[in-house]
Amino acid sequence: MTAAGIVELRAPYLVMIGGVKSAMYAKTGCGIVDWRRELVAGQLRFEGCGVDLGVPDMSVQEAKIAGVRSLIIGVAPVGGVVPDSWLQVLEEAAKAGIDIVCGLHIRLGNYPQIVEAAATSGARLIDVRVPPANIPVGTGRKRRGKRVLTVGTDCAVGKKYSALALHSEMQAAGFKTTFRATGQTGIMIAGQGLPIDAVVADFVSGAAEMLSPDNDDDHWDVIEGQGSLFHPGYAAVSLGLLHGSQPDAVIVCHDASRTLMDEWEGYSLPSINECIELNVATGRLTNKAIRCAGVSVNTSGLAAAERPRYLSKLAAETGLPCTDPVAVGIKPILENFQQHFT
Amino acid sequence: MTAAGIVELRAPYLVMIGGVKSAMYAKTGCGIVDWRRELVAGQLRFEGCGVDLGVPDMSVQEAKIAGVRSLIIGVAPVGGVVPDSWLQVLEEAAKAGIDIVCGLHIRLGNYPQIVEAAATSGARLIDVRVPPANIPVGTGRKRRGKRVLTVGTDCAVGKKYSALALHSEMQAAGFKTTFRATGQTGIMIAGQGLPIDAVVADFVSGAAEMLSPDNDDDHWDVIEGQGSLFHPGYAAVSLGLLHGSQPDAVIVCHDASRTLMDEWEGYSLPSINECIELNVATGRLTNKAIRCAGVSVNTSGLAAAERPRYLSKLAAETGLPCTDPVAVGIKPILENFQQHFT
Repeated sequence: MTAAGIVELRAPYLVMIGGVKSAMYAKTGCGIVDWRRELVAGQLRFEGCGVDLGVPDMSVQEAKIAGVRSLIIGVAPVGGVVPDSWLQVLEEAAKAGIDIVCGLHIRLGNYPQIVEAAATSGARLIDVRVPPANIPVGTGRKRRGKRVLTVGTDCAVGKKYSALALHSEMQAAGFKTTFRATGQTGIMIAGQGLPIDAVVADFVSGAAEMLSPDNDDDHWDVIEGQGSLFHPGYAAVSLGLLHGSQPDAVIVCHDASRTLMDEWEGYSLPSINECIELNVATGRLTNKAIRCAGVSVNTSGLAAAERPRYLSKLAAETGLPCTDPVAVGIKPILENFQQHFT
Repeated sequence: MTAAGIVELRAPYLVMIGGVKSAMYAKTGCGIVDWRRELVAGQLRFEGCGVDLGVPDMSVQEAKIAGVRSLIIGVAPVGGVVPDSWLQVLEEAAKAGIDIVCGLHIRLGNYPQIVEAAATSGARLIDVRVPPANIPVGTGRKRRGKRVLTVGTDCAVGKKYSALALHSEMQAAGFKTTFRATGQTGIMIAGQGLPIDAVVADFVSGAAEMLSPDNDDDHWDVIEGQGSLFHPGYAAVSLGLLHGSQPDAVIVCHDASRTLMDEWEGYSLPSINECIELNVATGRLTNKAIRCAGVSVNTSGLAAAERPRYLSKLAAETGLPCTDPVAVGIKPILENFQQHFT
């Protein structure tokens, strides 16, 4: 179920990565292929491109013939300026009736040639960073269905990855489940969602409510978290998302190699238990049943031999399943859901 | 000191209340006259207006001659639609070079005749609900100077009033102090400020940082709070404002007659101690010295005889000065500042 006003992308996709030299700048494109390979018809690359997503190369015309419905800009341009070579491709695609999907800070509507081409063909111009209009204030009203939200000790600690991994395992295990994206890359992967951090502050919890509407009693929304309650810049977003999501479960995400907030001088990360406690204490406002269901840790900064010791120590400290979703897999947390949340 | 990008109104003012029938709809106009009488040259009323702000009646032309620099729309139109009779007045004022200040949900820029008149004369069109552009993400960096923030057990419990009263008493007691407004009425009263709840969620704490910049070590910003950490719709705004304000002191505001959230079904108010604890616990992120300096209660819903008992019971429970800022005055809290915060 998707709430009115929340955009839905139309597959199959052509992922445009242009002339990027490194996969670091093609994170969105890589993410879409990693998680939704079945929706990707091909990639559009310029000569000299240093990245290969491992899907067929296609021009706009080939994509049109192959039935592609959306061109997704899968890279972040260096410096934020859109090169002319891109604009020509976007105009051609829009003219061919292919939706253009953009997660950059630029707005497609600011490019008259693209707007005109889209108007003629009926293609949609979708800026996934722009939230829908008319988001209501959060009501706090209890909704049907179950929800799990990933929360973090900091930004960029694997909240999106953990949510995608959990959703995928839940699906494989036969749960009724939907991944709910809250950031631009997540939205492009999910094909729908709501950029929660771009919503006006008064409406953040309302946006989260809109994102995960009433559902079957045994259905789980797996909601991508944002920021951290302990982050001096982004905690407001995290709290609004927590309140509006009214999760039954939170998964705490953490980077084992980090003790200080990334790029925020003078701020230490909370302990895992502090992070659990504050999320549960504040989350109780809208769902008294909230519990932490596990801890998902990026241990890539540790020596491989160190990992098991780190995770079992953390499990002892928290009394919860603790895992690295990449190196070990998210299954220990899934098992907790199967045993204690159904 | 005012940060770049934060609007400042130009006095003296002409407060327009049009044809309103009841003071309830002229709250903004009443507030400006109550708190900043010295800045108000007059009021503009239509025939049949049922409210009198107690200042001279003036036409736009009389105001121009009297040196008025801003016309402030001091009423909320019923239904949100701006009547034609208003537009004529606003156009006339803009033509005369008088700034138009509007706190309604409408945007002055959507009325071509007003825009044109202002462009010709150089008058400014100021929508106080519109935040400045280019607000940065909050840094959490400690700023110089002292800050006190009013926080609430709910919305509409006297946070603006308490902040204005405390600022006024501090000023009278010789403190260096500035009132920092965060909502439209507060901004019109203060003549400057930033509508914090209209800021995009990612930038709320950054906006609060911008609102109360570095200052003298013994200077106090008295910051108008918004919402409540316990409110399912608005807690995100409250947390971002708390983090960005990095207050040394919070004043908890409460309505003694309220046990349930106003208009939010199923939500109880926290106890005063719970409200203190969560504000201090989360506020410590950006200011480890944060303490609660007092409790400001609207006791108008109690029998007069009940008030002293209520306030002394609360003082015993919290160990803090507890007062009604209207019926008793904010002085008990001021004294706490004089004794324990300087």
